[in-house]
Amino acid sequence: MKQLTVALGERSYPIFIGAGLIDDTNLVAPYVVGSQVMIVTNDTVAPLYLERVKTLFKAFDVSVTILPDGECYKNLETLNKIFDQLLERRHTRKTTMVALGGGVVGDMTGFAAACYQRGVEFIQIPTTLLSQVDSSVGGKTGVNHSLGKNMIGAFHQPKAVIIDIETLNTLPQQEVSAGIAEVVKYGLIRDVSFFEWLESNIDRLYALDPEAVTYAIEVSCQCKASVVSEDEKEGGVRAILNLGHTFGHAIETHMGYGVWLHGEAVSTGMVMAADLSYRQGWIEKEDVQRITTLLKRVDLPVTSPEEMTIDLFKSLMAVDKKVIDGRVRLVLMSKIGDAIVTDEFDVSSFDETLSTI
Amino acid sequence: MKQLTVALGERSYPIFIGAGLIDDTNLVAPYVVGSQVMIVTNDTVAPLYLERVKTLFKAFDVSVTILPDGECYKNLETLNKIFDQLLERRHTRKTTMVALGGGVVGDMTGFAAACYQRGVEFIQIPTTLLSQVDSSVGGKTGVNHSLGKNMIGAFHQPKAVIIDIETLNTLPQQEVSAGIAEVVKYGLIRDVSFFEWLESNIDRLYALDPEAVTYAIEVSCQCKASVVSEDEKEGGVRAILNLGHTFGHAIETHMGYGVWLHGEAVSTGMVMAADLSYRQGWIEKEDVQRITTLLKRVDLPVTSPEEMTIDLFKSLMAVDKKVIDGRVRLVLMSKIGDAIVTDEFDVSSFDETLSTI
Repeated sequence: MKQLTVALGERSYPIFIGAGLIDDTNLVAPYVVGSQVMIVTNDTVAPLYLERVKTLFKAFDVSVTILPDGECYKNLETLNKIFDQLLERRHTRKTTMVALGGGVVGDMTGFAAACYQRGVEFIQIPTTLLSQVDSSVGGKTGVNHSLGKNMIGAFHQPKAVIIDIETLNTLPQQEVSAGIAEVVKYGLIRDVSFFEWLESNIDRLYALDPEAVTYAIEVSCQCKASVVSEDEKEGGVRAILNLGHTFGHAIETHMGYGVWLHGEAVSTGMVMAADLSYRQGWIEKEDVQRITTLLKRVDLPVTSPEEMTIDLFKSLMAVDKKVIDGRVRLVLMSKIGDAIVTDEFDVSSFDETLSTI
Repeated sequence: MKQLTVALGERSYPIFIGAGLIDDTNLVAPYVVGSQVMIVTNDTVAPLYLERVKTLFKAFDVSVTILPDGECYKNLETLNKIFDQLLERRHTRKTTMVALGGGVVGDMTGFAAACYQRGVEFIQIPTTLLSQVDSSVGGKTGVNHSLGKNMIGAFHQPKAVIIDIETLNTLPQQEVSAGIAEVVKYGLIRDVSFFEWLESNIDRLYALDPEAVTYAIEVSCQCKASVVSEDEKEGGVRAILNLGHTFGHAIETHMGYGVWLHGEAVSTGMVMAADLSYRQGWIEKEDVQRITTLLKRVDLPVTSPEEMTIDLFKSLMAVDKKVIDGRVRLVLMSKIGDAIVTDEFDVSSFDETLSTI
């Protein structure tokens, strides 16, 4: 088992990575506050892991909320179902919530924990690669609004993140790919040697070789933890974690949530960011090719939906959170392994990227 | 004009109290972040003060959301209307929200500000006595759930609180009374000399004599600010501000939100707390009488709805946030001017209070 720490003073917390951790009662017990536990999961994950996780918390008074599976349910209405359960089961302020599932379950459970009685504790047990390497770490929680993704939410850090790599064995291949998109992101923004490792090991990772998976999750979480420790509430450097996301959110909003997986949209978004970085003269044409090739090797999309025009992209990007006083701020690259956040890019290059990729 | 400070380190903020402050552009301008302002008000307050407050922020790009007036609209559904407006008007992270109205508007605007894009700044402009002396100060924000009051929310401090006492001139007398209930609370929990001042000056206060009103608001806000500075997130002493509230919330939940005004429910709740304190042998029968008399002089209710049984009260109180691991914690008094938070009271005395008051 590997253990990392997200260093945030009194809100610091551990990330555990290993095989079979969802059966390890001694590991999780110290992170439960009070006597009540509310497990939130969805109707895909529940048949696979709910009974084991209920056993994990058998020393406590356990309630369960099962949500419908899908990004399209990540909204205030579904959130209210969690509150219904918490109140019907009379959960007090000393409740510990547990998110068992992917990014949608984690974001909603964390946001419910942030708001229930103005804040209770929660534990993340991510079961998808994407949530294990990204969304379960760092305290960003929230729901979507019909006019924008993740527009309603809170910063609320978990007490612990329990990553059991064996849960990936039940994950559809398409979702493994989507998770790998975020793994590639860490190489692109901060770690060229990890990017090179991925170029050599992507097939083992895609095949869920335990050693490769553990290493990729560990490096990804370490990168995320270090960025979050530097800038918890995204006043500065944390924005680099959004590489590909502003383009990607536009695609997700246009297509309707869940039609493209988040990681798929980020994959295309990273290619767009790379293309624009190249047009700015910051990276080589060959770098764009390396990135595109790597993503294609795990069957990720690298071009945006054909019908999306320049104007449509711009209109959708204008409501993104990365817009400050009217200027779109993008995460671009000065080289592979070095991201920059800027609103200073050539408008005609931007238009070319939007129409080409 | 009086100025107080809520001391919370980098989240410290001023409270301004005076006549005509909602026309004072120079006063408010330093507290606006960015170029966009979203004023949230309701359909009762809008015809009275909206134009003046729009003028107050005329240097900025102003949007407005007008909510229906009433506690029964303080829910997630109405909250979503604020998010709709924010997104339709393309408000960015650098938006300043402004709550113009009473406690419901303040709580909902503050909660919307806490959640919109994971947190934007807001300014409180409370226009009711209750919100001026209580809810606009201290950062408690949120909405109700059908199973419990204020069950969903956040701690989110405003940038400034602007209290214009002239707005009280348009307030219905019943709401003046409701506000006075919270004013009396400060005397009961921490300040016997202020309680005595109220016994001598309650008629002037009820008649909205500007000098008496300013003094009562100043002492109340000073008390609240000092308690909040000691314990922002209610880990300890802040709970004394809930004197009368656990009983009162049960009444409000039973009657349906808004049938009894919040301050009216708190009035009866404080009499219940006083009665139980007397039955415990902590205060004199005469003290209960003094409190009851003072509240009755401003036409506040001092007994609970006749149909509310002991069991009903207990059942409603069991979902209150003051319940920890199954025990109801109550704010009681060891004397007038000294509150204590305890779950150690005689159950038969508790039952007698519930059936008598």
